[in-house]
Amino acid sequence: MKNVYLIGTGLIGGSMLLDLREHLKGALFYGIDQNADHAQRAVENGIVDQVATMADLAKAGLVLISVPVDAALVVLPQVLDLVPENALVIDVGSTKEAICNQVEEHKNRRQFLAAHPIAGTEFSGPDAAIRNLFKKKTMIVCEVEKTAFKLQEMAKELFDVLGVRVRYMTPAAHDRHIAYVSHLSHISSFMLGKTVIQEEVNERDIFDLAGSGFESTVRLAKSSPAMWTPIFAQNKKHVLDSLDGYILNLSRFRESVKNDDHKAIFEDMEQTNRIKTILKGIENGK
Amino acid sequence: MKNVYLIGTGLIGGSMLLDLREHLKGALFYGIDQNADHAQRAVENGIVDQVATMADLAKAGLVLISVPVDAALVVLPQVLDLVPENALVIDVGSTKEAICNQVEEHKNRRQFLAAHPIAGTEFSGPDAAIRNLFKKKTMIVCEVEKTAFKLQEMAKELFDVLGVRVRYMTPAAHDRHIAYVSHLSHISSFMLGKTVIQEEVNERDIFDLAGSGFESTVRLAKSSPAMWTPIFAQNKKHVLDSLDGYILNLSRFRESVKNDDHKAIFEDMEQTNRIKTILKGIENGK
Repeated sequence: MKNVYLIGTGLIGGSMLLDLREHLKGALFYGIDQNADHAQRAVENGIVDQVATMADLAKAGLVLISVPVDAALVVLPQVLDLVPENALVIDVGSTKEAICNQVEEHKNRRQFLAAHPIAGTEFSGPDAAIRNLFKKKTMIVCEVEKTAFKLQEMAKELFDVLGVRVRYMTPAAHDRHIAYVSHLSHISSFMLGKTVIQEEVNERDIFDLAGSGFESTVRLAKSSPAMWTPIFAQNKKHVLDSLDGYILNLSRFRESVKNDDHKAIFEDMEQTNRIKTILKGIENGK
Repeated sequence: MKNVYLIGTGLIGGSMLLDLREHLKGALFYGIDQNADHAQRAVENGIVDQVATMADLAKAGLVLISVPVDAALVVLPQVLDLVPENALVIDVGSTKEAICNQVEEHKNRRQFLAAHPIAGTEFSGPDAAIRNLFKKKTMIVCEVEKTAFKLQEMAKELFDVLGVRVRYMTPAAHDRHIAYVSHLSHISSFMLGKTVIQEEVNERDIFDLAGSGFESTVRLAKSSPAMWTPIFAQNKKHVLDSLDGYILNLSRFRESVKNDDHKAIFEDMEQTNRIKTILKGIENGK
């Protein structure tokens, strides 16, 4: 593969290229970004060799699309229109059903692979890109059977370089599951941060009384609104379901506290302690 | 000070003694615990020299009470009855109003100092005790004016050894603030864990799709129900207030998602991004 194009030179795509560049010797790497400063930073940070434009995609061997999920719905069909035969196009956005539906009937659908790496940090942009972000993490791949066999293989080789474990799912299952383990975490964290900020009119108080527990629970509230707004919008149904379940559980817990039902409070927490075993699995990278 | 007694040989008290022992040369350290195994482990782990009983407190120079907050209400008056004149008694529980009220009229009230170190991990028991847990953390001290001047000074010396920054507050202000920055974080984390476990009937799915974001947000759901149930019970009023604020914010966010009000979603998150600055303060230990 000679020419690799990254559309969206942020944390995820940037980190991918940092790893891939070491293994794809002889290839040239190009960055395409609406934000000219980001594209320039991506060159300076060694993520790509040069800035490019969509017209250049006619020479592409591989295109990685790593843009907000609403933008991806517009960009992906354009990319599939422009790339040469045999080029692989991968989208790595956090929702998968809308993007798969968007190109279902596209004549070059077989050149597209829908993926989602379960990795990231609360930071964003080309300066947030780091090496080895994906090592031992999960890469979800959707509708793999709709991608040309040779391009499936090419993707698998790239994923091996990143060091991910691949899991195959339908877009619907992906969006439902990820609403719970990712999107809901972000909302719970954002609203926790909001609630505390509202309460603590004098900010110095938060500053002084907050410990590592608060810090860890509210960490995701640093995340980018520009990235997360379209995710919640696109995964609306499942996000609403997960929020309903969460609000119901919180309201029930509130009732137990209100009614001095200490047995219920204790059991609720004890049963959730089971999360220890699950987290141990995540830490060990299975 | 010759004899130091630790009542409750768990994470907090155990970690305190590990640090204090290095600086109080010549003193002897005793552990008192309802759980005989924990007391024994505290000896084996070098937290205390010997196991003791409440009757031994007649020889105490310093008593640290680090037990669940409901037990502390029973233990503290007993300790104040038993200790010799000039002994300092410190309670380090996570609520301060009930314990201060409990001994308000006690004839030895001036021997008591109400404190709360904002430090800890999601683990518990004597095996969880670690050195330097309190370095650069905050120690909240309540009603300091009710403690004898010499004992205030003794406490300050001990806190200097631990490396904490001391902040003085009323018990009421403590309990209200801590409901938001600590108790609410724990509830939000527990209920997030519960919601995901409920949804993911097949546990393997959580395991595979959860990333570091989920892990961080749900970390506190590993915490001990035996410790946290009495905290929520004792801080009922403020915990209910904080939960009301949290549930309201979540419900409003849900409405914005439901109504496709992307501007509101974006602004809600953007305003909460201010938490970055606050967290930076926590990380740097101010």
